[in-house]
Amino acid sequence: MRVAEACFEDYEIGSARVTTGRTITEADIVIHAGQTGDLFPHHMDAEWCATQPFGRRVAHGTLVMSIAVGMTAGDINPRATSYGYDRVRFVRPVFIGDTITVHAEVTGKSDNRRRPEELGQVEETVTATNQDGTVVLSLVHLYVVEKRREAPPQA
Amino acid sequence: MRVAEACFEDYEIGSARVTTGRTITEADIVIHAGQTGDLFPHHMDAEWCATQPFGRRVAHGTLVMSIAVGMTAGDINPRATSYGYDRVRFVRPVFIGDTITVHAEVTGKSDNRRRPEELGQVEETVTATNQDGTVVLSLVHLYVVEKRREAPPQA
Amino acid sequence: MRVAEACFEDYEIGSARVTTGRTITEADIVIHAGQTGDLFPHHMDAEWCATQPFGRRVAHGTLVMSIAVGMTAGDINPRATSYGYDRVRFVRPVFIGDTITVHAEVTGKSDNRRRPEELGQVEETVTATNQDGTVVLSLVHLYVVEKRREAPPQA
Amino acid sequence: MRVAEACFEDYEIGSARVTTGRTITEADIVIHAGQTGDLFPHHMDAEWCATQPFGRRVAHGTLVMSIAVGMTAGDINPRATSYGYDRVRFVRPVFIGDTITVHAEVTGKSDNRRRPEELGQVEETVTATNQDGTVVLSLVHLYVVEKRREAPPQA
Amino acid sequence: MRVAEACFEDYEIGSARVTTGRTITEADIVIHAGQTGDLFPHHMDAEWCATQPFGRRVAHGTLVMSIAVGMTAGDINPRATSYGYDRVRFVRPVFIGDTITVHAEVTGKSDNRRRPEELGQVEETVTATNQDGTVVLSLVHLYVVEKRREAPPQA
Amino acid sequence: MRVAEACFEDYEIGSARVTTGRTITEADIVIHAGQTGDLFPHHMDAEWCATQPFGRRVAHGTLVMSIAVGMTAGDINPRATSYGYDRVRFVRPVFIGDTITVHAEVTGKSDNRRRPEELGQVEETVTATNQDGTVVLSLVHLYVVEKRREAPPQA
Repeated sequence: MRVAEACFEDYEIGSARVTTGRTITEADIVIHAGQTGDLFPHHMDAEWCATQPFGRRVAHGTLVMSIAVGMTAGDINPRATSYGYDRVRFVRPVFIGDTITVHAEVTGKSDNRRRPEELGQVEETVTATNQDGTVVLSLVHLYVVEKRREAPPQA
Repeated sequence: MRVAEACFEDYEIGSARVTTGRTITEADIVIHAGQTGDLFPHHMDAEWCATQPFGRRVAHGTLVMSIAVGMTAGDINPRATSYGYDRVRFVRPVFIGDTITVHAEVTGKSDNRRRPEELGQVEETVTATNQDGTVVLSLVHLYVVEKRREAPPQA
Repeated sequence: MRVAEACFEDYEIGSARVTTGRTITEADIVIHAGQTGDLFPHHMDAEWCATQPFGRRVAHGTLVMSIAVGMTAGDINPRATSYGYDRVRFVRPVFIGDTITVHAEVTGKSDNRRRPEELGQVEETVTATNQDGTVVLSLVHLYVVEKRREAPPQA
Repeated sequence: MRVAEACFEDYEIGSARVTTGRTITEADIVIHAGQTGDLFPHHMDAEWCATQPFGRRVAHGTLVMSIAVGMTAGDINPRATSYGYDRVRFVRPVFIGDTITVHAEVTGKSDNRRRPEELGQVEETVTATNQDGTVVLSLVHLYVVEKRREAPPQA
Repeated sequence: MRVAEACFEDYEIGSARVTTGRTITEADIVIHAGQTGDLFPHHMDAEWCATQPFGRRVAHGTLVMSIAVGMTAGDINPRATSYGYDRVRFVRPVFIGDTITVHAEVTGKSDNRRRPEELGQVEETVTATNQDGTVVLSLVHLYVVEKRREAPPQA
Repeated sequence: MRVAEACFEDYEIGSARVTTGRTITEADIVIHAGQTGDLFPHHMDAEWCATQPFGRRVAHGTLVMSIAVGMTAGDINPRATSYGYDRVRFVRPVFIGDTITVHAEVTGKSDNRRRPEELGQVEETVTATNQDGTVVLSLVHLYVVEKRREAPPQA
């Protein structure tokens, strides 16, 4: 974790980063179920899951999403604020023991509607892939980022 | 937690439910930081936060979202599958000690594009409000729901 | 979780409910050992357990009981207060990976001794069963429940 | 934690032990709510609790009981097995910040009904008291304990 | 946990104690990673670890050390204060499922430099061994211990 | 978290890094007590602590150390292995609500005794400071680091 200032102008469409991997464990599911209060049998009942098409307990969508987004939380940019997500899709289930890796790429830039001279909006597309190379999650992470304040022209 | 079957036809636009409240605690933030690996000072460093505009530690967006969605996980509907979220917005920060209540309302229904005769899509708008009545989070939760299988016409 | 008011008169002996299942995990044992400070080798030392008659780590009695009772915490009845348990028996050990299901049935009703006109006592017998149908825990959960306040007779 | 063998004959009615204290924290409640799935507003919603007679969030009965029993788990006696509890009573609520101390006293001994020559039953009365000296929990902890095997009489 | 007063003079070089065992679980690693923020792939990425010489996820050094030291926290000595560790060495990796046992032995005693008449320093060598008898951790735990206050000589 | 290869020759004595801050919470202490089994009243009993010279609950030494070391776990260097700590000293107590910042500086380099041509030893001095600028912990973190493999001389 490191502070790395970047203004709106510094973000380039197509610039990407890839994380190291993380194995989703039974403990992760137990802790997330406890934190959210979602103890649905899909996540907590191995016997019932064995009778279902997917055959095993499945990680909560919010767990996979929280971990995947957390894995991209590397540098702290004091000029940027996260304000939401678009098009969050749980493409394939994540099972206990699956290892996910996350790819994050700048895929959109635009001026902020209210204060276009000072602020811009950056879209980062986050894609989590399991150990077989299958995409399990995709989403667009939305940031507001300050624009560079130019020095006033000198007379 | 209870099993309550509902087919696509049973969902009515405008039908809504409201949860009991839940206080977001320092322990929630510590546990979520640990689960996600996001230990940014915004969530973990009270001294630094005191020097910032918001003045206090702020709950992670993914924490507020995970808890709010979890609070809506009441009945299990074996005919429905959650597949994603749209327009997740962190409208206002959530601080330690804030108590959120969640309102969930069916706001959209449409046929599934690939299998329109068997499946429908239901949109539920989830809104979390703090103790002052201020909206802190809104999102659209997306479900695929089975349609009712009609008995074949008799000759 | 839902608010569902029920007065003493609404409880019927023999009325019962059954929960979905929950698999007891190694993480549950580790978390409960940490919460209670009971790190006895029966729960924490797989090597030693392998030399014992039961052969494997065993869930704490208080863990099985806390989870089983929690699984019955569905509706909130503002007219009822839990005040204790009778005859808690750990009938058979619960092992990591076992899945328990809970059956709760109203098995007793009586007037409260101190305020018999206003309050009643309800006994709910809670039975937890593992995936083989073997009872692992039984207890009687005790509630004080308000009686219905009748409208005063009119002259 | 220490191994200390004691046979049925070694337990004396009236022998007692007192634990050090433990403060019940908000984190304990959050963790126990997560472990049990009991997220009732009595434990989790500070705003609602402020409108109730007790005015504050209350620890779960199973939490107080699990911690109190855990606090008595000092020596390991390989000759004894815990098999249940009788008369568990939540005498007074426990609030966040309360500090409990536990007193455990042997209050009953009897022969095991099925194998009276080999096994005995020991009852230990466990009483948890808060920082004001008020009893908050009492229960009877039941153990089966092996009797001392006497050397066979010599001819 | 028990209070057992011991003054500097009561510690004897060579006196030793051995703990019961504890199995290091995946849940322990997940919780410790969360607590410390160290989510390095050595601890969290089973796929990557499978490509490395050790072949499996490895417990954090600070986890093994914290648990091993905690396992020695039996009696509370109000005359002693822990103030540090010397020569902490992670001799061999600890894997998920390994069971460690801890041996602690008084290996050094000396006068405190600043207040030699009142305080002494005690060194306890802590050695953790896995189920194969292999040493995985060793360290020297340092305590300051009060000396016995002798009654003043009588005239 | 990022992979950043550095060979022994790349470490320079005097090169240093400083972390962002982290507030030590009551939840941290509760979780660490649970993980280690060290539930000594110094950490868990607010009432008793109020009667002691330090007046408040104190964080475990192993907690402060684990968090401080974890805060330095930024880049992954595949050429380095942590193998121990020297001179770990708990200089001042850490209380709930204290915020620590960590300074890590390369303070020693030497050849590995067994394989001096291939491996070197690097010492990093880690110092944790609270919000008042008071040092609370210091230790020396020991690494074995690979030396750069030079290309073989050409004929």
